[in-house]
Amino acid sequence: SFAVAVNAQVIDPMPSWNNVPAKADIIKFVNDVSQIDSVNYVPVAERIAVFDNDGTLWSEQPPYAQLAFALDRVKATAAQHPEWIEQEPFKSVLAGDLKAVMAGGEHAILELIMATHAGMTTVEFAQTVKDWLATAKHPKYNRPYTELVYQPMLELLTYLRYNGFQTYIVSGGGIEFMRPWTERIYGIPPEQVIGSSIKTQFELRDGKPILLRLPEVDFLDDKDGKPVAINKFIGRRPIAAFGNSDGDLQMLQWTTAGDGLRFGLLVHHTDADREAAYDRQSSIGRLDKALDEAGQKGWTVVDMKTDWKQVFPK
Amino acid sequence: SFAVAVNAQVIDPMPSWNNVPAKADIIKFVNDVSQIDSVNYVPVAERIAVFDNDGTLWSEQPPYAQLAFALDRVKATAAQHPEWIEQEPFKSVLAGDLKAVMAGGEHAILELIMATHAGMTTVEFAQTVKDWLATAKHPKYNRPYTELVYQPMLELLTYLRYNGFQTYIVSGGGIEFMRPWTERIYGIPPEQVIGSSIKTQFELRDGKPILLRLPEVDFLDDKDGKPVAINKFIGRRPIAAFGNSDGDLQMLQWTTAGDGLRFGLLVHHTDADREAAYDRQSSIGRLDKALDEAGQKGWTVVDMKTDWKQVFPK
Ligand SMILES: [Ca+2]
Ligand SMILES: [Ca+2]
Repeated sequence: SFAVAVNAQVIDPMPSWNNVPAKADIIKFVNDVSQIDSVNYVPVAERIAVFDNDGTLWSEQPPYAQLAFALDRVKATAAQHPEWIEQEPFKSVLAGDLKAVMAGGEHAILELIMATHAGMTTVEFAQTVKDWLATAKHPKYNRPYTELVYQPMLELLTYLRYNGFQTYIVSGGGIEFMRPWTERIYGIPPEQVIGSSIKTQFELRDGKPILLRLPEVDFLDDKDGKPVAINKFIGRRPIAAFGNSDGDLQMLQWTTAGDGLRFGLLVHHTDADREAAYDRQSSIGRLDKALDEAGQKGWTVVDMKTDWKQVFPK
Repeated sequence: SFAVAVNAQVIDPMPSWNNVPAKADIIKFVNDVSQIDSVNYVPVAERIAVFDNDGTLWSEQPPYAQLAFALDRVKATAAQHPEWIEQEPFKSVLAGDLKAVMAGGEHAILELIMATHAGMTTVEFAQTVKDWLATAKHPKYNRPYTELVYQPMLELLTYLRYNGFQTYIVSGGGIEFMRPWTERIYGIPPEQVIGSSIKTQFELRDGKPILLRLPEVDFLDDKDGKPVAINKFIGRRPIAAFGNSDGDLQMLQWTTAGDGLRFGLLVHHTDADREAAYDRQSSIGRLDKALDEAGQKGWTVVDMKTDWKQVFPK
């Protein structure tokens, strides 16, 4: 709206961003779709923006918060699983040998996830996540994981919502690992959080209904899976998509191929001093094909080192 | 809020309802959770209500609208499928022998659904649904299916939203069969529509991303599946649930077992003159176990014949 555009001149909606092209791109897009007299005007109901989480809204390496959670849960519950002392990948987790765990590849990670994310009710799991986040600290920064969110992206989320956008998370991470805290940290309610999932099963336990988490993959919300999940959960095509890796490529393709004005943005991790520098060669959060396509498609690329005044909240 | 409570005295929020206990139950519940000084006050973000669709928000028999759609699509596309002339259940559909089709049971219905709901993009399918609804008429009422919605339930949806509720559909029907029209008819946007689904696959077709609908069941949103889907899509437990059959039993159990004040309601089809009368013996929309449990659990049961002044919009 006009009032918002004027405000944007007076009060900077995103003070942690330097005055760089990426910031100008964002503000121009938001004005273009939200000003009623704009040729690119989009009704509020259709102003849907989707955000990857790991590496886009919060820090992802090393390690992924959800992997740290799984490792801690193995240690916390080892007494109930004496067999783990001799059984990989648990043996290596208990020995603190993360390299040996990672050498087990995806299969080892999946085993850890199933052993720590299934076998309890949805209510119990949510509480376990909350309890862990209240005490766990990131090994490098010595801060709670929920403080390792990107201040410039928090400002972007608020700015978009102020302009009528719904801001969804569409993450490869676990949907029920995120929902207990995204409302408090990002202002994103559970119904706007989409992620990977394991199956759940409805049961009456002593006459009381529960949802039991089963050790079986339901959906992997990554790469091709992201547009599939967006269509399933939201049922309309977003007009803006924000990611940081090749896992977000199809989500950006799907979003920006729609009719009318669209916006795609990649967060490029270029800041080894304040956070981490990685892209084409990284095993976590690899950004390679999507970076090439950003050039061809005109997606905005954020250079964390030069574009952001500040990375984490003070 | 106080203002709303006063308004409710002055302007009837649900004029198509007679002054019956069911109506009083609804208004008492809404006031109890929305008045800030109420001991049962619920913050707006948690005011989530879930509605079954077929038989709860619109007429379901005979036939289900989605089945009528599938039958019409078989006829419309038969020229491209010469093999159907000799092949059941298509042969019986083309001969207009619905009894023979139904004798094929669930397997026959599934074949019809896959042949008519898969093999095209999501965009193409949504357009096909819209085109069909624009011309199809219900055989009994000779009105478009989207006019066979329940006027008292439309008023209830509006009343709930006016009081800060999000109103979700949680239907056994196809999620992509509903989304093209629920916003226009019910005021429910696509992202608040949950239903049964087939799988989709992301593809680049001539460099343009599409989602192809595959002939494979993804999820059946009925019975046990309803609480599972509510947890997956919404991520919090509703405080009110509205259904009409045993397919809604687990949804009502899950909703009303939560902490604090909860509300469960069943629409009982008792009006053979204005619509249809069916319950314990019906093959479509059987209401048996849930009717028994309504008595035990204190769920509200709407008697369509005595409780509703009017069934369909004028
Ligand atoms: Ca990422
Ligand atoms: Ca029903």
